[in-house]
This record gives sequence, C-alpha cells and structure tokens, in this order.
Amino acid sequence: MRVMGVDPGLTRCGLSVIESGKGRNVTALDVDVVRTPADQPLHRRLLIISDTVEYWMDTHRPDVVAIERVFSNQNANTAMGTGQAGGVIALAAARRDIDVHFHTPSEVKAAVTGNGRADKAQVTTMVTKILALQQKPTPADAADALALAICHCWRAPMIARMAAAEAMAAEQRRKYQATLKATAKAKAKVAR
Amino acid sequence: MRVMGVDPGLTRCGLSVIESGKGRNVTALDVDVVRTPADQPLHRRLLIISDTVEYWMDTHRPDVVAIERVFSNQNANTAMGTGQAGGVIALAAARRDIDVHFHTPSEVKAAVTGNGRADKAQVTTMVTKILALQQKPTPADAADALALAICHCWRAPMIARMAAAEAMAAEQRRKYQATLKATAKAKAKVAR
Repeated sequence: MRVMGVDPGLTRCGLSVIESGKGRNVTALDVDVVRTPADQPLHRRLLIISDTVEYWMDTHRPDVVAIERVFSNQNANTAMGTGQAGGVIALAAARRDIDVHFHTPSEVKAAVTGNGRADKAQVTTMVTKILALQQKPTPADAADALALAICHCWRAPMIARMAAAEAMAAEQRRKYQATLKATAKAKAKVAR
Repeated sequence: MRVMGVDPGLTRCGLSVIESGKGRNVTALDVDVVRTPADQPLHRRLLIISDTVEYWMDTHRPDVVAIERVFSNQNANTAMGTGQAGGVIALAAARRDIDVHFHTPSEVKAAVTGNGRADKAQVTTMVTKILALQQKPTPADAADALALAICHCWRAPMIARMAAAEAMAAEQRRKYQATLKATAKAKAKVAR
C-alpha cells in the first residue's frame, strides 16, 4: 500500500510518500516541505499548496492520503489556516478518488514512539530509525509527514477491521428492527 | 461590481451573488444553500461544495468572492469544518484569478444592521429590506451569504482606500529609510 502523509499548514506543509510491505515494513519514497510566502493573500497560498499536492498525487499515485487532524488547541488563526490547507488537500484527493484518513497528533505519536505525548525530537528519532534513513529529516514538518504515513500504514488493518465490524453491527441492527416491526404487526393482527 | 458571498460550512453552505450599482444600490442575482450529507466522508463533502461553488463562479463570473472569516468561538470540530470548506472555496476563486476577501461576522452585522451584535432575525430583516426581496431568505445561511455580499459591496471602497494608503505609507517608509542611509553614509565620510 502506498500512503501519502500530510502535515497541513499554510507557512510550512510537510509531504511524504511511504510504501508499506509485509508486517510493519515501511519504505520512504519521498519527503519534502512546501512553503508559501506569508505576504501573499490566503487564496494564493492555498493555490500553491494545492498545485504542489496535486503534482505529488499525480506523480506518486498514493492509495491513501493520511492528514493530520488538528484541534483548536493552537492559536485560532493558525488552526484556521491549518484547516483551510487540510481542506484543499482532502479535496485534491477526492478529485482523484483517493481515500482520505485523518489521524490526531497523539495517534501519530503513539503509533511511532509508543507514547502519545512524545516530543518532536523523539518522533524524529523514531521516524529515522523505522525508515532506516541516513540522516534525520528536517524540518519537523517533514518528520511529522513521515510519521503520519507510518501511522496510517500500521493502523490501516485495525481501521479496516473497525469499519467491517461497524458495517456488521449496522446490518444486525437493521435485521433486529425488521424483526421487531414484524412481531408488532403480528401482535396487532391477533389483538384485532 | 459583482460580488459572490459565501457563508462556509460543511452541513449547510450559503451562496449568494449580488450586483452593486451607484452608491449603496445593490441587487440580488442569486441565492442558495448547498447541503452535504453528514454520513459522507469529509473529502467527499468538500468535493460536493467545491463542484457547486465552481459551477456558481463559472456561471455568474463574480469580480470578488467575500467569505465569512470564522474564529474558534464555535465548537472545535465545527470550526475545523468551516475552515476546510472556506479553504476549498478560496482555492476555487484563486484558480479563476478572482479576488477573495474575508469579513468577520461582526463586520457583516455592523454593515447590514448598524449593530455588530445583531441577531440572525435582525440580519434577515435588514437583508430583505436592503435587497427589496418579496420574502425573507431562508435558511439563515442564505441570508448570511447575502449579508456578506452586501457587506463587501459597501466596504469595498474603504478597503481600496486602505490598501492605497498602506501602499503609500510603505513607499514613504522606503524613501525615508533610503534618506537615513544616505545621511549616515555622508556623516561617516565626513568623520573619516
């Protein structure tokens, strides 16, 4: 499975592509950071991000795009910019019929380091080790993008099992309600 | 000037197009609300919004798109969805080289009702009056989209003057610093 990891942001947007093999085997194919000039109007910055991300998707043809899900624990303006960048990236994937999954920062940290509250240095160290890179990826956004892709590769089987279980539960619920309805009807007939 | 007003949102996204005439004269050309199903994955919902907004832009060819700038005073998840929808809309405008402006809810309310803290009913009443509509626009998102477009039409001359003043100030600053530099150089020469 080929996974594209994205750490969305207006100023710096981390991008990575990883190929997963057997078990927990993962190989890094590409990693980079897109930067957009802060003095440009917002819509122009989003266009730069969108164009770059679309180029990556068309070049690497990932099966899935994993994006960091950000909550508003940051500065309101930064959170808004992250949301806007994330939206543009998810849209680019939807246009290509590529599946999109969101992972929270603590899910990513837990997957890569075993600790949901690990700091940036720990994440970078583990990413370097897991992917057997010659040197540490910099800046932190690049390491985060790689960590996101690794996290998705490792969580994907669990996510698939969860989706299957949920679908089965929904089917059971539907059947149960149909039975309930039929019983109620039969009872009503008897009462008459 | 033709202005497209957008009240971004994942569940309901208000869209409007308004033509401004002389003075404070404004005419509504179109208004609608795009809804996306909550059970669809996020990237599919963004695609629905993007496709609709692109169709509107290609049909009405607005000169400017006015989008509501939302702060995180709402629920974190809603704010994120609003940000993502707003990003996709700003991107559609950037792709068509259409200018984008953001206005805060209080700027919109102040422009339309004279009160930055007006409630939804007051905004709807004033929008209906200003545009001389036969009936009140519903739901509130439609009225908000119209209010946004009106707000931009009325604030546009002020925004243009502000931009001109800022450009002039930057030019003056540049000249002043050049003079300072020249003076310092001359002084250094005399001192030698």
